[in-house]
Amino acid sequence: MHALHPFFHPRSLAIIGASSDPERIGGRPLRFLIEAGFAGALYPVNTAGHAELQGRRAYRSVLDLPEAVDHAIIAVPLPAVEQAVTECARRGVLAVQVFTAGFAEAGPAGAALQQRLVTIARKAGMRLIGPNSLGLINPGAGLFATFSTLLNGVRPTAGGIGLATQSGAFGSATYGAAALRGLGLSCAVATGNEADVDVAECIDYLAEDPDTRVICTALEACRDGTALRRALLKAADAGKPVIAMKIGRSALGAAAAATHTGGLAGNDAVYDAVLAECGAVRAGSIDEMLDIAYLCEATGRLPAGPRVGVVTGSGGIGVLMADEADALQLTMPELPVPAQQALQAILPFAVAANPYDTTAQVTSVPQGVERVTEVMLEQGACDTVIAYLAHVGLSPQRFAETEAGLIALKARYPHRHLMVVMLSTPEVAQRLGAAGVAVFADPSRAMRALGAAWALKSRRQDLHRVVPPTAEQLADTPALGAVGTEAQAKVCLAHAGLPVPQERACASREAAMQAAGEIGYPVVAKILSADITHKTEVGGVMLNLADADAVGQAFDELMRRAATHKPDARLDGVLIAPMVRGGVETIAGAVIDPIFGPMLMFGLGGVATELFRDVAFASAPLTAARAQRLIAATRASRLLDGWRGAPPADRDALADALVQLSRFAAAHAHELDAVDINPLVVREHGCVCLDAVIVPRQAPNPQENKELA
Amino acid sequence: MHALHPFFHPRSLAIIGASSDPERIGGRPLRFLIEAGFAGALYPVNTAGHAELQGRRAYRSVLDLPEAVDHAIIAVPLPAVEQAVTECARRGVLAVQVFTAGFAEAGPAGAALQQRLVTIARKAGMRLIGPNSLGLINPGAGLFATFSTLLNGVRPTAGGIGLATQSGAFGSATYGAAALRGLGLSCAVATGNEADVDVAECIDYLAEDPDTRVICTALEACRDGTALRRALLKAADAGKPVIAMKIGRSALGAAAAATHTGGLAGNDAVYDAVLAECGAVRAGSIDEMLDIAYLCEATGRLPAGPRVGVVTGSGGIGVLMADEADALQLTMPELPVPAQQALQAILPFAVAANPYDTTAQVTSVPQGVERVTEVMLEQGACDTVIAYLAHVGLSPQRFAETEAGLIALKARYPHRHLMVVMLSTPEVAQRLGAAGVAVFADPSRAMRALGAAWALKSRRQDLHRVVPPTAEQLADTPALGAVGTEAQAKVCLAHAGLPVPQERACASREAAMQAAGEIGYPVVAKILSADITHKTEVGGVMLNLADADAVGQAFDELMRRAATHKPDARLDGVLIAPMVRGGVETIAGAVIDPIFGPMLMFGLGGVATELFRDVAFASAPLTAARAQRLIAATRASRLLDGWRGAPPADRDALADALVQLSRFAAAHAHELDAVDINPLVVREHGCVCLDAVIVPRQAPNPQENKELA
Repeated sequence: MHALHPFFHPRSLAIIGASSDPERIGGRPLRFLIEAGFAGALYPVNTAGHAELQGRRAYRSVLDLPEAVDHAIIAVPLPAVEQAVTECARRGVLAVQVFTAGFAEAGPAGAALQQRLVTIARKAGMRLIGPNSLGLINPGAGLFATFSTLLNGVRPTAGGIGLATQSGAFGSATYGAAALRGLGLSCAVATGNEADVDVAECIDYLAEDPDTRVICTALEACRDGTALRRALLKAADAGKPVIAMKIGRSALGAAAAATHTGGLAGNDAVYDAVLAECGAVRAGSIDEMLDIAYLCEATGRLPAGPRVGVVTGSGGIGVLMADEADALQLTMPELPVPAQQALQAILPFAVAANPYDTTAQVTSVPQGVERVTEVMLEQGACDTVIAYLAHVGLSPQRFAETEAGLIALKARYPHRHLMVVMLSTPEVAQRLGAAGVAVFADPSRAMRALGAAWALKSRRQDLHRVVPPTAEQLADTPALGAVGTEAQAKVCLAHAGLPVPQERACASREAAMQAAGEIGYPVVAKILSADITHKTEVGGVMLNLADADAVGQAFDELMRRAATHKPDARLDGVLIAPMVRGGVETIAGAVIDPIFGPMLMFGLGGVATELFRDVAFASAPLTAARAQRLIAATRASRLLDGWRGAPPADRDALADALVQLSRFAAAHAHELDAVDINPLVVREHGCVCLDAVIVPRQAPNPQENKELA
Repeated sequence: MHALHPFFHPRSLAIIGASSDPERIGGRPLRFLIEAGFAGALYPVNTAGHAELQGRRAYRSVLDLPEAVDHAIIAVPLPAVEQAVTECARRGVLAVQVFTAGFAEAGPAGAALQQRLVTIARKAGMRLIGPNSLGLINPGAGLFATFSTLLNGVRPTAGGIGLATQSGAFGSATYGAAALRGLGLSCAVATGNEADVDVAECIDYLAEDPDTRVICTALEACRDGTALRRALLKAADAGKPVIAMKIGRSALGAAAAATHTGGLAGNDAVYDAVLAECGAVRAGSIDEMLDIAYLCEATGRLPAGPRVGVVTGSGGIGVLMADEADALQLTMPELPVPAQQALQAILPFAVAANPYDTTAQVTSVPQGVERVTEVMLEQGACDTVIAYLAHVGLSPQRFAETEAGLIALKARYPHRHLMVVMLSTPEVAQRLGAAGVAVFADPSRAMRALGAAWALKSRRQDLHRVVPPTAEQLADTPALGAVGTEAQAKVCLAHAGLPVPQERACASREAAMQAAGEIGYPVVAKILSADITHKTEVGGVMLNLADADAVGQAFDELMRRAATHKPDARLDGVLIAPMVRGGVETIAGAVIDPIFGPMLMFGLGGVATELFRDVAFASAPLTAARAQRLIAATRASRLLDGWRGAPPADRDALADALVQLSRFAAAHAHELDAVDINPLVVREHGCVCLDAVIVPRQAPNPQENKELA
């Protein structure tokens, strides 16, 4: 049994702080539970010593109850909460919800009190939701263990959608909207301050819950990335789609702000990557989340592939849907010849294309809609067929025959997705939905929901189960050591298996000239200083030095420039490196995300990265195959195919470098903030790290963080 | 009186081909009109000679009618249409709608017949909608002059939204969805084959129609860009928002496909530019179009500015709305100190920020919501205040006092936008909407609609009334002449006032060496051939030639390469130009759009343009101020500000070059397909056209078009 089971399926429930007033926070859950006919034992508790509350026998303390209840709600004033939790623990309660506010959200004293509640609960093996939570519901069990006033206006019904949010208001807004659409819920829970149970654990529960077929969630202040990943993967493995909203922009890791990778890791890119890797999709609004959830719930499965066939009585709407499909990862294939012939036999005047515009002729042929839809389902080589039927669903009697025909078709072709777009009465939509035929009113929204469903399916086929280094591997990894200068960083990366040019740190003019001679001209000279991160900004790089004289002058000039621009910088001399020409400049990096740990980043350098944020993230470590897909996920990766007649760049070598970097980041996650390799030049054969910065873990610098936020 | 007025406000209406069967195409409009109590005279016409049809006295021919009717519907079989139109013209009908199909959409014979109808109508001064149209409605007048079966299921009510579409199915899908939301319509019209009246003229009518306050439209096959621009501008001048959907990707101008500008002009970029210039916004779905229309209609005006204040009982929803605002052109300013103090006086425990999270405390203060909302309206320095009220609208009695308070607030602050986001009953939303308080269920959709309303307002403040060259100016413009080679194109652009480098076309090795000496080293050599558009692809450019020997060798080498790569190309020698270093590479171009005429394009060159389509279009000619905004509209324009320590580039010179190019394109629109200046290098002082291609108007080449489509 899952540890959260008693919250959602209690055989008995106590309300501590229950009220006779059905409008008060302690009175509402009691009223809701009675009204909904909650079948378990229900025990109002109030220290005032009422004989009964709202018609139920009342108790002075949870200690007086005749049994150890599964689930207790605590809705007493702040000063009484600790004692209530203590008594629950003593009485053997399995699960408590604390509705009372004034804890961690209110300051240090509240945080300390909250921590004491956790200690009490943990010691007793009792689980705790809240404090400062709005409650949870399980409509199928008549369990409305919440004080949400939403239930004054609408009562959610039972169904397959499970909802886990931190914010109670967000949760009730969502399940209220679901209820108004006629979408049923398995359960919905708001975790509040998450002193013990968090959203990730609720997703973990929903992944197991047999009543839940689709999971919706809103992510706000996730603290345990590992638990979230595990829960999402568990849901994916259980075949349950997860549709997530992310509220608020992700915080920028503090010291990582000194690198490009760190700066780009903000703005939700890391969340996007983790959700995709774990098989979830992200929705941009509550309506969109419910659109996707409805489609998944009604059809009962995800589409087998991206191919869509559209049957439409309106050419314009067909084109609109084709435009939308084109903007998603969906395809609208041409119809196979047998399908075309079958359609032409039914409707000789319509052109058998996709979208298939039936023209008005379809209305003059008996069962016209059903017959052409069947051809599309059977012979159309499509995974999903969408029929646009205008507004026939608003006239249930006229539509009855077609409705029955569509339901029969769905039964005959269960492995295909069948969707209908039309205006309809709620009853018509409900009947079709119950038969597995999803009904949408808006053609664009229908196609977008299908796009998300296909994304769920394709992501499920490509889950990323991050394998962190083992304890043995970590024990074998030497400590990072000094990485302040470019030369030190490159030595470190070379040890990690990354390709760095043959180059020399030279402390004197003479050493530089000698090194250049040995490396071979032309060479590059770069200032070496742990205090100068962005060398170009101080004029600290000189290219294309053709002979020893030029190298000697460059040494003096670089030292002069650095001293002028950054008088307080410690200068370690100059780095002499071979001049690399040609190739494609990319940027590779890693950042240790405070929530999700080591993340790899790849992008094309320069404008693409900085102006267009055309970068892709993946959890580290990763495989070469996943590195290849990461590369392909950037729009600028087309440059690697050979731009304007250039030879194709060596993607295999690049992928290998990314794999090595990801392993390095994972192995040093505890002592690292970020790595930038910029540029990582990819050539026709091989690639090379021309410049690198490694930022070891350090105390956050609030000022820097603020500037870049 | 507008020419289309008789269609929408007929004093009398004939239905030619009227049927006694209320389900047939000729029977439906008669039934709908009778059911809706159309107040004008209603004349069923049918050659069968019925005494009456559906209870109304019937006539054998329109010639037998007792009066010259304003509006006649023609719903007879194809062979009888021409005679019906002829008789309408003879009887003095002002406006005919032809529902019958089988005209231009069915082939050449239908197209010829359609043209004859137009000729008959034009000669008689009679206007014609259709053929192949679904009809039009004016619910306020009980005018349901359509055969749309939508009206079997739902009957639109009167209101301020006017709808013009070409597709009848798209139109009825939209007004059906509007009706289900309780949104009223002034009128809706489907133009079908647009033999005479098109969507642009309907927008023109709606811009004048006193019952219409907001205009929705779907653009499919616009043929007259000038008329569309004029109608959109007229609506903007009349203070009426236009919300447009574009169906289908815009066709690629055929010969323009040889240029970058032409290739980028596809994909709707030109439509986007024209709609924005004419004050309209584009919606991505029917639901979104109706969201925006509802907001405009309910509030009765556009927001005064982009500043939004959010009052919310849920922190999470507040952050969600702030995220959304951030992604739009909206701002959420900090609250002025007096507003903060006023809020703190009402709710001491809430932090007076924006979004303003009232916490649960607001429920324990009498009129808490109304009081804090008033502070935001009065002192919040916001143009719009959005109150998130969860689901209170589902409990009308509990909400009654707040509802009255909000309505009173709106009356007190009419110049501010007031929006409420909550779940509610339709009646509550209807009452608030009628009082000018817009109600949305979904917080993200509310914010997006507001973003569109603000875009409408800001675009209205910056309308682009394109002034084409006068006949005199055109008469003074010399013909384009030969522009096949780069050198010819540059001469042409130099005449037009664009900055081109001092450079020479050289037919021989000796001439090249002499020219280089006069220009000054280093120089660039480029192959000169009207048959080679993309010189780099044949290795036709050699940079940085330092002396006469290098120039001589380059001449031979370029001629050899060109002959090898393109043996059939005519070679005119080599162009010698000064080597330009530094500066920012941009691309400027012009394309003559088949619908909208001369359009200017600007973008940063290279990756930004080709991979990210980070380009901006504007109608030509334009002013320097608009050229500056065009530059600023590209994301890559930040490179002009001085990238990585480079000096800022000369935006004024760039804007001036764009103005000259736009004038050139407008003056030569009749003999030009496209111009590419790539790169147009912008330096610290001035800019220079390093390469240019001019494509004169030529016969379309379907093959090229197909490849690039």
